Amino acid sequence: MERTPTATLLLSCPDRKGLVAGVSDFLFRHSANIIHADQHTDQEEGLFLQRVEFELEGMDLGPEEIDSAFSPLADKFGMRWQLRFSSEPRRAAILVSREPHCLIDLLARWTMGELHMGIAAVVSNHSDHADVAKHFGAEYHYLPVTEETKSEQEKQLMRLLDDREVDLIILARYMQVLGAEVVDRFPHKIINIHHSFLPAFAGARPYHQAYERGVKVIGATAHYVSVEIDAGPIIDQDVIRVSHRDTVKDLAQKGRDLEKIVLARAVRLHLDDRILVYRNKTVVFD
Amino acid sequence: MERTPTATLLLSCPDRKGLVAGVSDFLFRHSANIIHADQHTDQEEGLFLQRVEFELEGMDLGPEEIDSAFSPLADKFGMRWQLRFSSEPRRAAILVSREPHCLIDLLARWTMGELHMGIAAVVSNHSDHADVAKHFGAEYHYLPVTEETKSEQEKQLMRLLDDREVDLIILARYMQVLGAEVVDRFPHKIINIHHSFLPAFAGARPYHQAYERGVKVIGATAHYVSVEIDAGPIIDQDVIRVSHRDTVKDLAQKGRDLEKIVLARAVRLHLDDRILVYRNKTVVFD
Amino acid sequence: MERTPTATLLLSCPDRKGLVAGVSDFLFRHSANIIHADQHTDQEEGLFLQRVEFELEGMDLGPEEIDSAFSPLADKFGMRWQLRFSSEPRRAAILVSREPHCLIDLLARWTMGELHMGIAAVVSNHSDHADVAKHFGAEYHYLPVTEETKSEQEKQLMRLLDDREVDLIILARYMQVLGAEVVDRFPHKIINIHHSFLPAFAGARPYHQAYERGVKVIGATAHYVSVEIDAGPIIDQDVIRVSHRDTVKDLAQKGRDLEKIVLARAVRLHLDDRILVYRNKTVVFD
Amino acid sequence: MERTPTATLLLSCPDRKGLVAGVSDFLFRHSANIIHADQHTDQEEGLFLQRVEFELEGMDLGPEEIDSAFSPLADKFGMRWQLRFSSEPRRAAILVSREPHCLIDLLARWTMGELHMGIAAVVSNHSDHADVAKHFGAEYHYLPVTEETKSEQEKQLMRLLDDREVDLIILARYMQVLGAEVVDRFPHKIINIHHSFLPAFAGARPYHQAYERGVKVIGATAHYVSVEIDAGPIIDQDVIRVSHRDTVKDLAQKGRDLEKIVLARAVRLHLDDRILVYRNKTVVFD
Repeated sequence: MERTPTATLLLSCPDRKGLVAGVSDFLFRHSANIIHADQHTDQEEGLFLQRVEFELEGMDLGPEEIDSAFSPLADKFGMRWQLRFSSEPRRAAILVSREPHCLIDLLARWTMGELHMGIAAVVSNHSDHADVAKHFGAEYHYLPVTEETKSEQEKQLMRLLDDREVDLIILARYMQVLGAEVVDRFPHKIINIHHSFLPAFAGARPYHQAYERGVKVIGATAHYVSVEIDAGPIIDQDVIRVSHRDTVKDLAQKGRDLEKIVLARAVRLHLDDRILVYRNKTVVFD
Repeated sequence: MERTPTATLLLSCPDRKGLVAGVSDFLFRHSANIIHADQHTDQEEGLFLQRVEFELEGMDLGPEEIDSAFSPLADKFGMRWQLRFSSEPRRAAILVSREPHCLIDLLARWTMGELHMGIAAVVSNHSDHADVAKHFGAEYHYLPVTEETKSEQEKQLMRLLDDREVDLIILARYMQVLGAEVVDRFPHKIINIHHSFLPAFAGARPYHQAYERGVKVIGATAHYVSVEIDAGPIIDQDVIRVSHRDTVKDLAQKGRDLEKIVLARAVRLHLDDRILVYRNKTVVFD
Repeated sequence: MERTPTATLLLSCPDRKGLVAGVSDFLFRHSANIIHADQHTDQEEGLFLQRVEFELEGMDLGPEEIDSAFSPLADKFGMRWQLRFSSEPRRAAILVSREPHCLIDLLARWTMGELHMGIAAVVSNHSDHADVAKHFGAEYHYLPVTEETKSEQEKQLMRLLDDREVDLIILARYMQVLGAEVVDRFPHKIINIHHSFLPAFAGARPYHQAYERGVKVIGATAHYVSVEIDAGPIIDQDVIRVSHRDTVKDLAQKGRDLEKIVLARAVRLHLDDRILVYRNKTVVFD
Repeated sequence: MERTPTATLLLSCPDRKGLVAGVSDFLFRHSANIIHADQHTDQEEGLFLQRVEFELEGMDLGPEEIDSAFSPLADKFGMRWQLRFSSEPRRAAILVSREPHCLIDLLARWTMGELHMGIAAVVSNHSDHADVAKHFGAEYHYLPVTEETKSEQEKQLMRLLDDREVDLIILARYMQVLGAEVVDRFPHKIINIHHSFLPAFAGARPYHQAYERGVKVIGATAHYVSVEIDAGPIIDQDVIRVSHRDTVKDLAQKGRDLEKIVLARAVRLHLDDRILVYRNKTVVFD
């Protein structure tokens, strides 16, 4: 299906009467056809958040003019805002370690048109996945890492991300902790899949922890990466029932299905500009 | 928690530019504070649907003036619309046959403040539940029915509903089919809980049907009652896993948990004016 | 439906060839008809666990003779075992604080025959639920508690439990921490419902914690009470999706549905002797 | 992890005292170590069903001797039974039409060791998936089909299945109806994934049907293929919530996640000999 070119406005500001009227009036005056609009008010914080997606065709403004036309209104209400165009898909880097299930799943979805992005590179600290990446038409970069070479490897990685103009990093079961420099450079632009129902079982070997504790449900959590490990804003979570019959290996196998689905959902929500972050939490306009 | 008095506007009309701007501008001009707004466009049908809830306090219109102030805008866009005030909760009748689980569940929720409604009457074709209804402070009416007396019983029922000014009928496992006269009188105002995942196993004895077919998941469906049985607009559904170990009796027991929850959710959505119906389907702004 | 009288054997012992043959041969020799049998081997621990339910009718042993007839076999394999008869239902005490939803739900299920137990007493540190308990035919005991009187109140409670010969305590949203004396006296005989997906959000105000963390799924956990708070063996868990739209109050309301269902499931599993505990985990033969 | 060689016995027969004792005694006498045992009695039918998996190492019978040693017992109880060895994995053919998501998912799982089988062939009525099949090391056969050539194509298919000694056919979104000849040849050996929650929306275009009916939950069903379309024994089902926001295309996309997972689960259950069929229903010993 052909997508007509659209723009998506994500904004947040102190709640005030007239906000919805202001934004919708702006779009109406410029003959924009609204495809989707959703909003949320955090009553406690007095914060208003909104997503509006509209068609560019038929507007009396060119895409490059919208920004300056909207600015006065945004200033008036003290908005933090972002405007993106469907014609400029993100350039993603997928990072992966030994286990390929999330990588293959993302590549297959991408091939089927589920993910509106370019894949600038697949990067791994293992050489194993070069063939599958190539098969699906993605560049593969093998950047091995040891404790000694970690800092050097991250520099290589940063150069690669810069060269390829990457603006989204997907950690598809990448088992290395990214340094603060990388994390700070890509705020709310690194999506990780953690194989537990956070905040339960943060850190290493969550399936072993879950097995030890004897839980009856396991989960997976997709979140933006922040400097504190496994503590960034949660984008999506899902769970599956387990029982005493499940060994750690069984938990890992069942969990892989969750990991694939939850990561893919989070990536799609991000690509469609459906996520706003505030106070280390996400508002997801799905 | 004290609820501040609000009004909720539910509207639908042919999709057109300027709709959102028109409604939000109207509310802004009259100094209404929007608490919640959600909208949906059915692209195929070219139909726009919206829910807006706003506080009455601070408006420059009294509640009784909003209607006529809004009418010109509604006419301009050809809207079908409804305006309701939180200060005028619905008056519900709960109908029940032998099994009391949904009835008790609704009464308990009502006692705890989960359901913003008055209970005008509990009506049953059995005398069994008089005590529990009274315990929770609801009037009980025993209207027995046989094949011969069905038409007479429905007349009694209609009189009762009229006398009590009932505007919502909840079929909490009421095993009699309501006649067309009652159904037509309360369009989209009768909520039934069917103990299957409709459209599978419509009609009688759905748990027996599910057992026979050997399904691995059973469900429950809350829907508005229409003249065609089990074919009205679906409000909510939920499911639970079952296995070969479950007898028909086990399915019924597991299913009761679904029935209670799905019915209560549907009733709450209706009471909060979150449901719009078109083409035998619901739009649920939750 | 009439239940034929059955006995249920729960056993665990070091895994060894011939165990299943030994137990089934014993039952066959005494002409027992097996209704349900399930078993589990923890390979790592080398531990075998089994549940066998069999009809008493037709056996060549009277109920009171089974114990001594089985002992030699049990000794040979070093079994820890328990034999219970369906004709001797447990005597439960339900403890509750301010919120009545779990209490009412349990009473309603009990009335409908879902829970095979006697209710020896409903106990609360509030006087609020006397009427509803009486309505469903249960004794009500109001045992108020303050920081100063806590130790005295627990003594009263213990006396009450002793007098009523209680052998199952259900904490149906009882917000007091039970002292070690009570806990030690009823090992794996106190079932608590915790309103979070343990081990996430252990301790106080889990819905506030969940709200703060911005999770997308909330849960409830039924577990046996041990001296360490919220750390006992987990019996059952379930979850429900939430979003940024849900306030703390909404989380609490959605969570109540989980609490009711998960607690009732755990109680039923316990009453049917389907739970074995080892290493602070449960094996649930459902 | 190395799997020790095991054998799995699946049996069913009229229920009778002494069955469990008989089977477990047989295994004990021949020094078999039971890894997993599960059983079920359909009380209404008076039918007993059992699965026993045991290690071959340490037995006093060679694998080829078990059959004849067990026969007298099987005859005595009138058992239908099957014995399979983990050392002889099944040889599967995967059939696929245009949409590759199930195919790629199965291939990726197979590569990761999740599916204990050989892939004898990937067969399609489209040429599209030759590369991906080859990438994962599977033979690809392009067997185009039109209404006129259908009978001829099925003959080719049958020859191919015979040549490759296929004993499991996986319909991974194969959109052709298999003829009775193929179906009869592989009883309970053809697994299909239907993209609805059967029996709802059997037949063509289930997502369109679901959209029209306005359901709030969609599902997927894995089942054995029988001559009557979409009516064979159900192996597994799962569901996902949808809303008025979901177009038919969205339903299809959400549904693909279900299809992949439910099909893979069903295949794994079959490969592990965990499924017994009777009266068009499955008993799944998971």
